[in-house]
Amino acid sequence: MKENDQLHEECGIVGVFGNPNAANLAYLGLYALQHRGQEASGIVSYDGKKFHQEKGVGLVANVFNENNLAALVGSSAVGHNRYSTAGDDGRANVQPLVGTHAFGTIAMAHNGNLVNADLLRTSLEASGSVFQSTVDSEVILHRLARSTARTLVDRIVDAVAGVRGAYSLLFLSEAVLIAVRDPYGVRPLLLGQLKTGYVVASESCVFDLIEAKYIRDIEPGEVIQIDESGITSFKPFPKVQPAQCVFEFVYFSRPDSIIFSQSVYGVRKRLGYELAKEAAIAADIVIAVPDSGVLAALGFSEAAKIPYDVGLIRNHYVGRTFIEPKEAIRHFGVKVKLNAVREVLEGKRVVVIDDSIVRGTTSKKIVKMIREAGAKEVHMRISAPPILSPCFYGIDTPNRNELIAATHAMDEIRKYITADSLAYLSMEGMFRAVYHSESGQNHHFCNACFTGKYPIPLDEAEVKQPSLFDLNMLTQS
Amino acid sequence: MKENDQLHEECGIVGVFGNPNAANLAYLGLYALQHRGQEASGIVSYDGKKFHQEKGVGLVANVFNENNLAALVGSSAVGHNRYSTAGDDGRANVQPLVGTHAFGTIAMAHNGNLVNADLLRTSLEASGSVFQSTVDSEVILHRLARSTARTLVDRIVDAVAGVRGAYSLLFLSEAVLIAVRDPYGVRPLLLGQLKTGYVVASESCVFDLIEAKYIRDIEPGEVIQIDESGITSFKPFPKVQPAQCVFEFVYFSRPDSIIFSQSVYGVRKRLGYELAKEAAIAADIVIAVPDSGVLAALGFSEAAKIPYDVGLIRNHYVGRTFIEPKEAIRHFGVKVKLNAVREVLEGKRVVVIDDSIVRGTTSKKIVKMIREAGAKEVHMRISAPPILSPCFYGIDTPNRNELIAATHAMDEIRKYITADSLAYLSMEGMFRAVYHSESGQNHHFCNACFTGKYPIPLDEAEVKQPSLFDLNMLTQS
Amino acid sequence: MKENDQLHEECGIVGVFGNPNAANLAYLGLYALQHRGQEASGIVSYDGKKFHQEKGVGLVANVFNENNLAALVGSSAVGHNRYSTAGDDGRANVQPLVGTHAFGTIAMAHNGNLVNADLLRTSLEASGSVFQSTVDSEVILHRLARSTARTLVDRIVDAVAGVRGAYSLLFLSEAVLIAVRDPYGVRPLLLGQLKTGYVVASESCVFDLIEAKYIRDIEPGEVIQIDESGITSFKPFPKVQPAQCVFEFVYFSRPDSIIFSQSVYGVRKRLGYELAKEAAIAADIVIAVPDSGVLAALGFSEAAKIPYDVGLIRNHYVGRTFIEPKEAIRHFGVKVKLNAVREVLEGKRVVVIDDSIVRGTTSKKIVKMIREAGAKEVHMRISAPPILSPCFYGIDTPNRNELIAATHAMDEIRKYITADSLAYLSMEGMFRAVYHSESGQNHHFCNACFTGKYPIPLDEAEVKQPSLFDLNMLTQS
Amino acid sequence: MKENDQLHEECGIVGVFGNPNAANLAYLGLYALQHRGQEASGIVSYDGKKFHQEKGVGLVANVFNENNLAALVGSSAVGHNRYSTAGDDGRANVQPLVGTHAFGTIAMAHNGNLVNADLLRTSLEASGSVFQSTVDSEVILHRLARSTARTLVDRIVDAVAGVRGAYSLLFLSEAVLIAVRDPYGVRPLLLGQLKTGYVVASESCVFDLIEAKYIRDIEPGEVIQIDESGITSFKPFPKVQPAQCVFEFVYFSRPDSIIFSQSVYGVRKRLGYELAKEAAIAADIVIAVPDSGVLAALGFSEAAKIPYDVGLIRNHYVGRTFIEPKEAIRHFGVKVKLNAVREVLEGKRVVVIDDSIVRGTTSKKIVKMIREAGAKEVHMRISAPPILSPCFYGIDTPNRNELIAATHAMDEIRKYITADSLAYLSMEGMFRAVYHSESGQNHHFCNACFTGKYPIPLDEAEVKQPSLFDLNMLTQS
Repeated sequence: MKENDQLHEECGIVGVFGNPNAANLAYLGLYALQHRGQEASGIVSYDGKKFHQEKGVGLVANVFNENNLAALVGSSAVGHNRYSTAGDDGRANVQPLVGTHAFGTIAMAHNGNLVNADLLRTSLEASGSVFQSTVDSEVILHRLARSTARTLVDRIVDAVAGVRGAYSLLFLSEAVLIAVRDPYGVRPLLLGQLKTGYVVASESCVFDLIEAKYIRDIEPGEVIQIDESGITSFKPFPKVQPAQCVFEFVYFSRPDSIIFSQSVYGVRKRLGYELAKEAAIAADIVIAVPDSGVLAALGFSEAAKIPYDVGLIRNHYVGRTFIEPKEAIRHFGVKVKLNAVREVLEGKRVVVIDDSIVRGTTSKKIVKMIREAGAKEVHMRISAPPILSPCFYGIDTPNRNELIAATHAMDEIRKYITADSLAYLSMEGMFRAVYHSESGQNHHFCNACFTGKYPIPLDEAEVKQPSLFDLNMLTQS
Repeated sequence: MKENDQLHEECGIVGVFGNPNAANLAYLGLYALQHRGQEASGIVSYDGKKFHQEKGVGLVANVFNENNLAALVGSSAVGHNRYSTAGDDGRANVQPLVGTHAFGTIAMAHNGNLVNADLLRTSLEASGSVFQSTVDSEVILHRLARSTARTLVDRIVDAVAGVRGAYSLLFLSEAVLIAVRDPYGVRPLLLGQLKTGYVVASESCVFDLIEAKYIRDIEPGEVIQIDESGITSFKPFPKVQPAQCVFEFVYFSRPDSIIFSQSVYGVRKRLGYELAKEAAIAADIVIAVPDSGVLAALGFSEAAKIPYDVGLIRNHYVGRTFIEPKEAIRHFGVKVKLNAVREVLEGKRVVVIDDSIVRGTTSKKIVKMIREAGAKEVHMRISAPPILSPCFYGIDTPNRNELIAATHAMDEIRKYITADSLAYLSMEGMFRAVYHSESGQNHHFCNACFTGKYPIPLDEAEVKQPSLFDLNMLTQS
Repeated sequence: MKENDQLHEECGIVGVFGNPNAANLAYLGLYALQHRGQEASGIVSYDGKKFHQEKGVGLVANVFNENNLAALVGSSAVGHNRYSTAGDDGRANVQPLVGTHAFGTIAMAHNGNLVNADLLRTSLEASGSVFQSTVDSEVILHRLARSTARTLVDRIVDAVAGVRGAYSLLFLSEAVLIAVRDPYGVRPLLLGQLKTGYVVASESCVFDLIEAKYIRDIEPGEVIQIDESGITSFKPFPKVQPAQCVFEFVYFSRPDSIIFSQSVYGVRKRLGYELAKEAAIAADIVIAVPDSGVLAALGFSEAAKIPYDVGLIRNHYVGRTFIEPKEAIRHFGVKVKLNAVREVLEGKRVVVIDDSIVRGTTSKKIVKMIREAGAKEVHMRISAPPILSPCFYGIDTPNRNELIAATHAMDEIRKYITADSLAYLSMEGMFRAVYHSESGQNHHFCNACFTGKYPIPLDEAEVKQPSLFDLNMLTQS
Repeated sequence: MKENDQLHEECGIVGVFGNPNAANLAYLGLYALQHRGQEASGIVSYDGKKFHQEKGVGLVANVFNENNLAALVGSSAVGHNRYSTAGDDGRANVQPLVGTHAFGTIAMAHNGNLVNADLLRTSLEASGSVFQSTVDSEVILHRLARSTARTLVDRIVDAVAGVRGAYSLLFLSEAVLIAVRDPYGVRPLLLGQLKTGYVVASESCVFDLIEAKYIRDIEPGEVIQIDESGITSFKPFPKVQPAQCVFEFVYFSRPDSIIFSQSVYGVRKRLGYELAKEAAIAADIVIAVPDSGVLAALGFSEAAKIPYDVGLIRNHYVGRTFIEPKEAIRHFGVKVKLNAVREVLEGKRVVVIDDSIVRGTTSKKIVKMIREAGAKEVHMRISAPPILSPCFYGIDTPNRNELIAATHAMDEIRKYITADSLAYLSMEGMFRAVYHSESGQNHHFCNACFTGKYPIPLDEAEVKQPSLFDLNMLTQS
């Protein structure tokens, strides 16, 4: 379970081409991808003559209504869900970004994070570009505008070539929908076929909902152009070793999705399985921190032959708008979301499975809650290795010094969260689960958050950039 | 899983007395009771001089914000969550209702349903009462006003004495909070102690959240007065055989609640256990229709020794505001909420556990979804007996002729929902689970929805009343 | 010009019967009557089967939109504009009030003020009535419900018979629209004919807008029933000397309206004429406090043969929502609404015409503003006698001790407002203007605000009632 | 009186520097300038570290509230009121525009219209600029970004140098507020002194409201920099013959403003005076089309010695949100705003004064309304020459072929509007009024709308550009 304001979900994107209900389908797609970003949402459609857009802060259900959705006419559309850093600053930052260039209008949706965006931005500004937002990928819009290539695909390749980082991108112009996945393939991006037209989306659960047929993953480094004549694939970038985000399996993606050609469900359950093999303990029941820990808990239970049970109930109505009561009774944070079931826990030795510990404060509250419900022992098991380093490729992690595993020894963490025992899954265990094989070797996944080894190079300057950049940031009051 | 517009959740109520954060605590309580009513919400507080109220249509999170919550000053408060029949008609119908009488202002919140409300209303109107809403319990406000008893408790007893039906009621006046539970005790109502002051609520999950200590259930037929001097209990009504709603265990209440002195979790899991004993079948996996079927599925799995797995994923972001796309791609109903996990289901003989089948349309879609994900066999198991009769005590069921089990033989239902086999839990099985005993005898529960035997008498006229009454109904356009 | 929060406009009402666009026409009527109440607005329509209502706080333009207006179907409708006493307390207080009785649902709209409402309310509450609002005329709904008369008209007559005060009332039931004017005829109420159906409204400007033909005034003490068979008139009340509100001419009504069978324009201009005859002064220009003083200023100018000019410009965009800047630069009150024109005023001896002085604070600011724009002399002339007494018949005046003319001598007032001279119109002058005759005798107008002689009897208790009543008042937070 | 959707008001701008209440003062300024643009409003402030912005569609009173205004912290601010072309397209188009450049963030507010914006935009896009809106002045932001000059003033001069058209501009950067008026001085822009700090605004009525002292007009072609060290003036552009918009006097500016060093009140009254001298007629009364025709009517009345009266009453509550009733009773347009006073008009020979006739449809309805109120003769007099040509410098006029005076002879117009006589003021008469002199010569005013002689050169292409440009336009759905 993720702590608020600490490890946010990333973004979800969806593009539809050649379907008379394009915006409606994009809307459904954003619904299915709501877990990837809950702070803001937008759709841009094109009707053959004009672009139409609707963007807003909030859940998909809050941003769109029958009226504004009906106004998004046209047979192509791109949509975006995102999280926001703080406050409601930045209505200007809600994607898709739209820019008008010499060759027409472009709407762009981005999932990922660019590590050299600030340097590129500085240089673009220095030579006369005017930025409308503080979205990192806006640099791509400007580089696009400066490309002298003839076709839009070539311009996009030009624009993206100098950009370093993680990016799954969708571009909607007047004639085409173009999808790009960075050479490392950090974020997922999949191609599907509708009865009429095509769809590109971050996860396959979108296809299930809108009854599209999964065609294939957009490959790392691939550019796909969808137009009236169909689909054309380009591989314009030098080939590198892929570095797909393993945390998509551990936490982010929906368990009913297939990404990186693997069922998230399967990986997540095997994570629990491996965890049981590595860190078994005598206990009466296995429970999960819902919902993210459920599948690993089931896997753990199966492998450890300890019964799985539902010891924590989640209140799914708790959204972003929960109002904390006044001082005297503050800090409801975890309690308003989770409640322990005494009937399950009383007098038991409990294994509780979560996918990660970030700052440790949430885990501490959960252990306390379980113990207050009568548990005799509380054994915390984490279905991934310790998070040691922040992500620079699209996941909003706190600074290294706020990551408890980066600054504390295992036993210190255990003491902090007041568990009777604590164990994390090993790196090899994680990759055994991911590859469903015995070796535990990592071939094409990024595991920087667990190792600090960043596959896409970071300059010293880049690592520190975010805070500097903020100084100039425009806020929406 | 409940079908939309068919079997709605009933209401949730909460009252706080003697705490400076009364309205804030009521707000938290309504959050915890959101599952009992999601269409409208309201809180009325009293600050020693004035009453303050805020009501609105929508979820608790949408109705209340920092500003309007801060304005609900005072040390006592009552709150109410409710469902609405249709459209947004009836902002006038959002509870708590507030009326001014000779002896002061009264705010009233009601969970349940009155079976002779229309007759009482007709008679009150005939002798000069003016109704402000179409809420059935408004008759109680008027009867209250006409009572000549001296104390408020006596007036309430007077007012309630002639009322037949299910009612858990909270009354807030200038000096006291009064809680009433009907003699049959149909709906739950519990008393808790705060560090400062008292709380009364529909379920114990409220107490867990606001850190109140559970004192005891308000008993069937009991009237509790809470004032500056503490708690006083009255038993003014003739004693009858209790008829607590068994469906609270089957579906309504939160599994982490204790109601009717039983853990909902425990009952629900045993329902699955009994179901397995009665209707075992050779299968590879047991899955649940989430979230309501999960505990019964775990019980079934344990008893049947068939592994439990997560074969259906629920999208918890789907709220009431989902916009169906245009004609061509309509009817997303179930799909937007649930998705099947092929990895789990492919090639498997699947037992799927749900708590009820109402019209059958949802079950049919679920079976289809499971089969399309590759299941070889789909065996539907229901953790309660067939629903044969509508509820007149507070649960919004369709008419008898829309209840598939009332009009179709078991095998017809199975064919309709396209399952390979179908079985319901027996009545005895259900009560074995409820009482956690071998006998399977029912002593003090209402099971009218499964039997058509209504413990609280209904006149022919009353049964038909609802539709007649509508003719005159005022709608909020 | 009226000071904010001091002398508010009263209410405006409109009823339409027998027209397929009933609610639309009521909406237009409320637009035309917006000057009579700007705090809240509501319409209730009836479509032959159901009542529909829409009410809200704010201007007509803010409360109604295409969607909610379209939902107000039916061929009969009543609408109401009102002012609110304080804060936004009382969404429950927005009229038309709707109540359900034995004989059906009634929507009621009231313009005026009842002087014995509190006594009636106390007695009704004592015998069991439950009040939904703090609107004074709600007592009529309850008395209606208790009447044993056979027809609705007779019930209304019953209900109104015991009520003392000023009331122009509209009742909409399922079959009829009934209009009632109190025996004194304090507030205006007019009957008009549409191409299809009938309209009743507070002022004739409604008829001009919706192209209705003025038929006649509803007479003091008359009850009009409009139904499918046409119009029926009743005169059920004992005849009394009429006491129509003269202040409707002085300030409230729109100058393009005809009320009490007189053109408001004509009266208002003659008020200026008489004022000039009584209180001439050597001056260079006559200006008005816009907009209410314009016609009297024109009349004064004509009679005094001093040129009229536009020395004060009003910003018509200033509504209720103006936000005062922080402390340092507070108190923009009058300035944000009015600005002086130096070109007009510089070096001039200025006569400035207003219709009244209430507390004096606004007049003081206006005089200061004129002087700062360069005026050599500022002579304030008021087109009515001094306001000495509060109104108990529907106009929101401050208490007597806040009325500057009630507590200060003429010269003290002059000094306070810093004018070089000050004169009010005499009582005879006012009635010369009203009757357009030489005598200056008052025959059938209420002038209690200028004399303290209340034509409708007030008990001591009643006069003091308002503040007592507030103690118990329910506020909408 | 202006017809809706035909001749819209232009924009209003205000900038504040060096005052702790900067945004509050800007808000007040926008209130005072609401008549210059009622479709959208925005304020950007700077607090020494960050920019804050709030923009929205609607009146100032609707866009700003206590919360969002309080969040606009800082001691400098710029604000903008604007009209929109159609629908609510273009939330992206609400000014001030904000762009981030190499040298920091710039907020820009523009009043006027650029005639070569499309050509500049095409060229900027061709060399890589990405546009965020379809606001014409966005080209200036981009040219600014490309300037290699060292100081911001020099960059602005660079940016503006190649721009042709009418522009009064405000730029807010982190350190300075810069005001620019185009060399022709088409739109007004004035400098004022606050007790603390400075203010720049479109009209002097802003200064009256916020108690600023008028210092002087920003001169045509002048650039003013306001920073911590005070005010610095630059005259960087080649000197040209000024061409200030004479229509500001005729219609746009508030009569209590001083612009172009002349009192609008004075000019407007003299327009009526000259009109009377040129086009006298035997009549009983002179009335105005309120509010814009009032002062000219007063001047006419005085000169023609025909009494002025109030024959048309304006309903000031009618805003943009008026909902036309359904088909059967459509086209309330003028009626809902204006009503005729029979008492004034009946049996009279009426001179009615308006400032312009655009398409003629409104005038026709007004004449009809006056005649239906009983006027014997209706003589229309217009206080300016006929409008023959569209404005390309900031006023939203219809195409030439929709301007009735451009396509019809005088007597055809008279017949169309059904007046008994019609006369316009002559060009000389207008300039006699403007200069308050006998000659009637025009020295430094633009009168292109009356003559078709455009002082700022227009290419054929530019004149036609607007419609072409629309094709590509991004709409906010």
